[in-house]
Amino acid sequence: MNGNAVRVALLGCGTVGTEIVRLLREQAGDLAARAGAPVELVGVAVRRPHKHPELGDLLTTDATALVTRDDVDVVVEVIGGIEPARSLLLEALKAGKSVVTANKALLAEEGAALAEAADASGVDLFYEASVAGAIPLLRPLRESLAGDRITRVAGIVNGTTNFILSAMTESGAGYADALEEATRLGYAEADPSADVDGYDAASKAAILATLAFHTRVTAADVHCEGIRHVTASDIAAARGIGCVIKLLAICERSPATADSPEAVSARVYPAMIPAAHPLATVDGAFNAVFVEAEAAGQLMFYGQGAGGAPTASAVLGDLVAVARNRVHGGRGARESAYASLPVLPLGAVPTRYHVSLEVADRAGVLATIAGEFSTHGVSIAAVRQTGGAADDGGAARLVVVTHAAPEAALAATVQVLAGLDVVLAVDSVLRVEDLGRKGVAP
Amino acid sequence: MNGNAVRVALLGCGTVGTEIVRLLREQAGDLAARAGAPVELVGVAVRRPHKHPELGDLLTTDATALVTRDDVDVVVEVIGGIEPARSLLLEALKAGKSVVTANKALLAEEGAALAEAADASGVDLFYEASVAGAIPLLRPLRESLAGDRITRVAGIVNGTTNFILSAMTESGAGYADALEEATRLGYAEADPSADVDGYDAASKAAILATLAFHTRVTAADVHCEGIRHVTASDIAAARGIGCVIKLLAICERSPATADSPEAVSARVYPAMIPAAHPLATVDGAFNAVFVEAEAAGQLMFYGQGAGGAPTASAVLGDLVAVARNRVHGGRGARESAYASLPVLPLGAVPTRYHVSLEVADRAGVLATIAGEFSTHGVSIAAVRQTGGAADDGGAARLVVVTHAAPEAALAATVQVLAGLDVVLAVDSVLRVEDLGRKGVAP
Repeated sequence: MNGNAVRVALLGCGTVGTEIVRLLREQAGDLAARAGAPVELVGVAVRRPHKHPELGDLLTTDATALVTRDDVDVVVEVIGGIEPARSLLLEALKAGKSVVTANKALLAEEGAALAEAADASGVDLFYEASVAGAIPLLRPLRESLAGDRITRVAGIVNGTTNFILSAMTESGAGYADALEEATRLGYAEADPSADVDGYDAASKAAILATLAFHTRVTAADVHCEGIRHVTASDIAAARGIGCVIKLLAICERSPATADSPEAVSARVYPAMIPAAHPLATVDGAFNAVFVEAEAAGQLMFYGQGAGGAPTASAVLGDLVAVARNRVHGGRGARESAYASLPVLPLGAVPTRYHVSLEVADRAGVLATIAGEFSTHGVSIAAVRQTGGAADDGGAARLVVVTHAAPEAALAATVQVLAGLDVVLAVDSVLRVEDLGRKGVAP
Repeated sequence: MNGNAVRVALLGCGTVGTEIVRLLREQAGDLAARAGAPVELVGVAVRRPHKHPELGDLLTTDATALVTRDDVDVVVEVIGGIEPARSLLLEALKAGKSVVTANKALLAEEGAALAEAADASGVDLFYEASVAGAIPLLRPLRESLAGDRITRVAGIVNGTTNFILSAMTESGAGYADALEEATRLGYAEADPSADVDGYDAASKAAILATLAFHTRVTAADVHCEGIRHVTASDIAAARGIGCVIKLLAICERSPATADSPEAVSARVYPAMIPAAHPLATVDGAFNAVFVEAEAAGQLMFYGQGAGGAPTASAVLGDLVAVARNRVHGGRGARESAYASLPVLPLGAVPTRYHVSLEVADRAGVLATIAGEFSTHGVSIAAVRQTGGAADDGGAARLVVVTHAAPEAALAATVQVLAGLDVVLAVDSVLRVEDLGRKGVAP
């Protein structure tokens, strides 16, 4: 063991952990030169040591003992989930170890407790790998844009759902078929709920909003809808108005008004975005995040959002930073929630709706429906009526695209419409996001 | 004056400097919260104080005195050019001031001297704004990817030339007309040489290569060609093979071979890239940089590459980092050139050529020309022959697209072709870059 080395304990050795071990060995010389001292793996906690014979004496099943061992400077966590990761990392931080983690669920729920523990011990807590894999995103938000005011972060942060929606868009397949293909190719897990129901993206949205707005936002603050209900006809409808459907994580700052103070919001849902927007061309399992700041303008970050090697790359970048601070003194930029802005519920956030209705084909129907939007203060951007031939049994299809209005007003409008005699069915309700091109009807 | 404030001297107050002053004032509360102490402007050195009446007592014409003043902690330089910036920043660093600069020309020439001076005093030297304006790029290269091996950085880093080439692509205009439009709209300066001859991009390539490969690369190491000779027919020829022409800055790592050690290279030239590549859709004055690393895979960064507010955003991000280090101790990641890899001359770098020839329309010409490529060890990817009707006076057009071969072999081939009796004219020679899709003929 090297006397002045920075000594690393690894918790978990699955796909990402295995890549971390490989890179620590293969890049040892470069890592030492960049960190200012050798970066040495001194222990790996796993549940089934027999699966990792190549790690020999480094292995232990006692993660609790490992994280407080005297010969450990930094704990790297790639177990995932809330427990035991939470307890282990709090123990490690309390014991003065710096922490690098890829655990988005934990950060989205317990970020405040972890940040406090890191502050109390004066150590680093880094988690670049928790959002958008290898894409450098958290460091730019936290450091590069520290002199600016971020107004929006919106992106594709879940590769599984992006793969499914891309497949549906390309082939016209339905959700079930596209999910089956994603599972077969290894892009979706056997239980895909965390991905397809949006929870994974919601955790990431909480982390992004917290960093972008210096305000504590947890997963519970993030309105979350997944992609299970997106149909082939929704995709076709999007195409019809020059859009594609993407599962977006959106974090926004709302300026103060006469009635309300400055606030922030975070939400995850499938939405129509203009096909010409840079995010629209992000296909397959790739991630991309669009950032808007007052002085910097529009920025985009693109790359691989998951996978063993890309995630390990992000972990090692953090590890070098932590090691350098251990060697040279100092700490990295820490999370701060000094702004403590109110977090808006979805109902108060302005969104736009694309509503597809089956309506009775008779005089006055359009006026009735338009009247309901108007009553709720929702302005209509575009209307298209089709069908209405005798063989449809007197039914017509009405598609309404609104301008931006508070989500609560839009939802209330749709609820009233659904109860009208002239509305035979509300076939789909999807949101439309202009992403910085507000006011432009898609 | 605040006792524990971080005190800033600003050198230069043009477009960028004015924005820096504005943001320092408007964002004072946020900057203080993020840095851990107020960030206070204590002096601004300008040549013509009467142009900045709003700065009052902060103004001075004696920049040399300002940079060593006892009440200055950080010097921010936005003068540009080599002198007096070089002397002023060396003085400042020697006096223990941290430095934030946007000066690409200075860094590309004197980066080593500046880095040494910063190291000698143990202070920070940051320059995110020097490349690609507001796009967080240098910090990701230096820190986020510190645990990875970067193999290529390729991008559009000059907005003026990208505006001109985009205009030529969209309208079919020639170079002169597009330059005139760019000048009229303020995208090109009265003397556009630094932009259109590629010098600005070459400085940025030197900075990027130095950071990416931990190897000192100066502007003199960067092969540099501008866009003056790009014609409307080149643009059309690119379109004919599914490409667009972009001025690229390319920094590459070449793996070790049996004959040669691992090496790096940096070059700037207009090149054809596949229209489906993400860089191809970056239009107008925007910048975008594509990064490939062994573990992270392909990443892209996109945003505004110039302008007062975007550049000021990058400067202030650095300033907050410097201020935080002043408050909490520690230093940011510094530049390192520990790898000291050989820097290849252009002739040794593999590239691909798109050659358009006017040739005599008679038997055996294609065989002769193909033979010359073969003699020089250059493999041909595609050939297209057109024309040859009697009204062309017996001339035909031959377009050859090669596979990758050492630039020197390609250049030698073209030189020989130009001297052949059957070659009436070499109409254009352009490089083709696959950017990570090697082996795929465009």
